[in-house]
Amino acid sequence: MVQHSPRLDETFAALSDATRRGVLERLGRADASITELAEQFELTLTGMKKHVQVLERSGLVATRKTGRVRTCSLGPRRLEQEAAWIEQYRQMLASRLDRLETFLEKTKGKS
Amino acid sequence: MVQHSPRLDETFAALSDATRRGVLERLGRADASITELAEQFELTLTGMKKHVQVLERSGLVATRKTGRVRTCSLGPRRLEQEAAWIEQYRQMLASRLDRLETFLEKTKGKS
Repeated sequence: MVQHSPRLDETFAALSDATRRGVLERLGRADASITELAEQFELTLTGMKKHVQVLERSGLVATRKTGRVRTCSLGPRRLEQEAAWIEQYRQMLASRLDRLETFLEKTKGKS
Repeated sequence: MVQHSPRLDETFAALSDATRRGVLERLGRADASITELAEQFELTLTGMKKHVQVLERSGLVATRKTGRVRTCSLGPRRLEQEAAWIEQYRQMLASRLDRLETFLEKTKGKS
């Protein structure tokens, strides 16, 4: 498993906030301006801009400016590496539990 | 998708650090004391204790104290909810790309 990935650090940190996860789910349905997102999540424009910046830095959101309006859409990041890390972790847990079960069965057999 | 989960906030934050992910991978192989973890990751005891506390709060690590030694093992948290969130996000992305493809094909058909 790859430990030192600044990308994983950034993405997991971006995902560790309920508002930011909410914004990603919202943008999954349709693009939205920062003003629309701020209204929906009942945040100030400044507050929403900060969340969008975090998401943009991690590649989860892309923005484009037309005139005075900045529109947000889902970015290029597909969470493949993050899904892979979690999956490997779950497999490791499962194999530890299997080994524990085998050990317990052997111990039982001996008693 | 469930947005407001303090659990997801905590786990994703815990996973956003390479050392903490490394500790989980290490504990997946075998339990270890905080001293052993500190040595392996070249951190001070205090530094490693802080990381272990973050992992313990999120349920990813469990610790037990025998005399002066605190031993760490993998905790009860199985990352099911985290895997589910990422999977739903990836499905949403895939379905958006499908819709985009259908739209492009229709547009091509018309020209």
